[in-house]
Amino acid sequence: MSLLRQIAAFAILVLTLPPLAARADDLSSWNDGATKQAIVDFVSAVSTEGGADYVAPGERVAVFDNDGTLWGEQPMYVQLVFALDRIKALAPEHPEWKDTEPFKSVLAGDAAGIAASGEKGLIQLVGTSHAGMTSDEFTKIASDWIETSRHPKSGKPYTSMIYQPMLELISYLKANSFEVFIVSGGGIEFMRPWTERVYGIPPQNVVGSSIKSKYDVKDGKPKIVRLPEVDFVDDGPGKPVGIYTHIGRQPIAAFGNSDGDFQMLEWTSSRPGRSFGLIVHHDDADREYAYDRESHFGKLDKGLSEGPKRGWTIVSMKNDWKQVYPE
Amino acid sequence: MSLLRQIAAFAILVLTLPPLAARADDLSSWNDGATKQAIVDFVSAVSTEGGADYVAPGERVAVFDNDGTLWGEQPMYVQLVFALDRIKALAPEHPEWKDTEPFKSVLAGDAAGIAASGEKGLIQLVGTSHAGMTSDEFTKIASDWIETSRHPKSGKPYTSMIYQPMLELISYLKANSFEVFIVSGGGIEFMRPWTERVYGIPPQNVVGSSIKSKYDVKDGKPKIVRLPEVDFVDDGPGKPVGIYTHIGRQPIAAFGNSDGDFQMLEWTSSRPGRSFGLIVHHDDADREYAYDRESHFGKLDKGLSEGPKRGWTIVSMKNDWKQVYPE
Repeated sequence: MSLLRQIAAFAILVLTLPPLAARADDLSSWNDGATKQAIVDFVSAVSTEGGADYVAPGERVAVFDNDGTLWGEQPMYVQLVFALDRIKALAPEHPEWKDTEPFKSVLAGDAAGIAASGEKGLIQLVGTSHAGMTSDEFTKIASDWIETSRHPKSGKPYTSMIYQPMLELISYLKANSFEVFIVSGGGIEFMRPWTERVYGIPPQNVVGSSIKSKYDVKDGKPKIVRLPEVDFVDDGPGKPVGIYTHIGRQPIAAFGNSDGDFQMLEWTSSRPGRSFGLIVHHDDADREYAYDRESHFGKLDKGLSEGPKRGWTIVSMKNDWKQVYPE
Repeated sequence: MSLLRQIAAFAILVLTLPPLAARADDLSSWNDGATKQAIVDFVSAVSTEGGADYVAPGERVAVFDNDGTLWGEQPMYVQLVFALDRIKALAPEHPEWKDTEPFKSVLAGDAAGIAASGEKGLIQLVGTSHAGMTSDEFTKIASDWIETSRHPKSGKPYTSMIYQPMLELISYLKANSFEVFIVSGGGIEFMRPWTERVYGIPPQNVVGSSIKSKYDVKDGKPKIVRLPEVDFVDDGPGKPVGIYTHIGRQPIAAFGNSDGDFQMLEWTSSRPGRSFGLIVHHDDADREYAYDRESHFGKLDKGLSEGPKRGWTIVSMKNDWKQVYPE
């Protein structure tokens, strides 16, 4: 029986070992080169027990921006399309909108008019499209919309216009015991209904901008009601605050694509131990879009100039990505 | 080789099976009886694949109040002791406090005077003791205090005055693929430095009350600065809102001990499928404290009257718990 026991013991040993580190081959949509190497080097360094840069699994927190980092943000933010569609859907119940800004401009498809309504107008649009219903009702509205709406250029669902290399990166980090969070300027409840299905990131790991809500019991039935009042803007300097509030741990890796992610990368890079910052540069007009310093959505100016000086990795979508979207 | 292969295959099969449901024996500090049975019945029902009450693992969210549910809250909330200690420690730098409420009452140990300063006074005390420093500084202050302070009656560290049966319950739920969160009226950043070590609940799974904070870069060094302004009160009707904001999923099980947990249990119980609500009733003056409807801290009145009608399980600390504290 001794040989049998040895085999059983060996099987137990092998099977109870922590999963082997994911191989760099799992990043198969990334071209070989400095960018891919920088990712692999970082992950190896923080995962190597006994190494100078080792970080315990529980502390391996990675944060990803969403718009422009995990999915597209051109020709405009997906959530903005949702808000405008929602206004149009509600318009028949609001005949007065024909003469009231910012609704008038929305219904006329007048982008300049919407822009002219400024922050006040934008808050009105968000309040109207995102508030005044229960949490369950909003989840259903957002879920239905994301299922049925299509990108104006590709005609594909928005949730299929996600970046394959970034999906592989999320899996690669998870396989190396990272806990992965989305930290987005987008609305937290707009993302949560689909992030698990699309990215494998569950609702509790999604941080985002939010409006206020209140608990209300009507006819013995409890509801959470969404209020037309901004609670938190998870963008720019708001991102480190959102991370502090929701996660309570300083990340060791941060992934973004615009200047709205600058402070998140800066905050991550300021930790005492080794850290990793990465910016996706949209320079691929053929396969996706090319934009940076002058873009209305996802403007990348400061990050492009300062990122390399701070040791952040700049991804050239054109050169570093073998494939942009999932098959 | 065929037998060897069979054994290896068996070992692989056994070792790759999902972990067996934790046995009720793991709840060894709970006396046998209706309370323990209700817990086991619920967990079995939602974990049994194919059963009418089955809930997928990702949806098995359990929320625990902290003060009075996981650790003691008498003779006063631990965090209040911290705030008062902090005021005393800062007093030498603030000679004016000798003549200014609510500080005067704090320094004189005059509980009635503190109470008389009302909500405004309380906010001043929180602002002074919890704000005006960086996130890292506050973590250090709170961690040092929790290490060194002692309970006035037992002389033990507060983090050892936690409830052994509730620790077993957390482990039992985790073993059955629940994700466990703390949802406390207490300060989120006061709890986060030690919840993982003490309860096995990591910072990102802690929801609580919070003050505002902002991101600030000074001399090229980024910091998160805590501001003397209340951001969110995670108590009573705030708890379902905190759950919605932080977790984004309706829990299937909620554990509390005071009327501040009422809405959390109510919200949890309102989900369409099976749910579980539990209230710890402090009726054990010998081993801990006995208090409920008239208590200044952890008042339990509505929950005690209405809980049983709503199908919630009321734990008698005296009768249901074999042991209160860990050995």
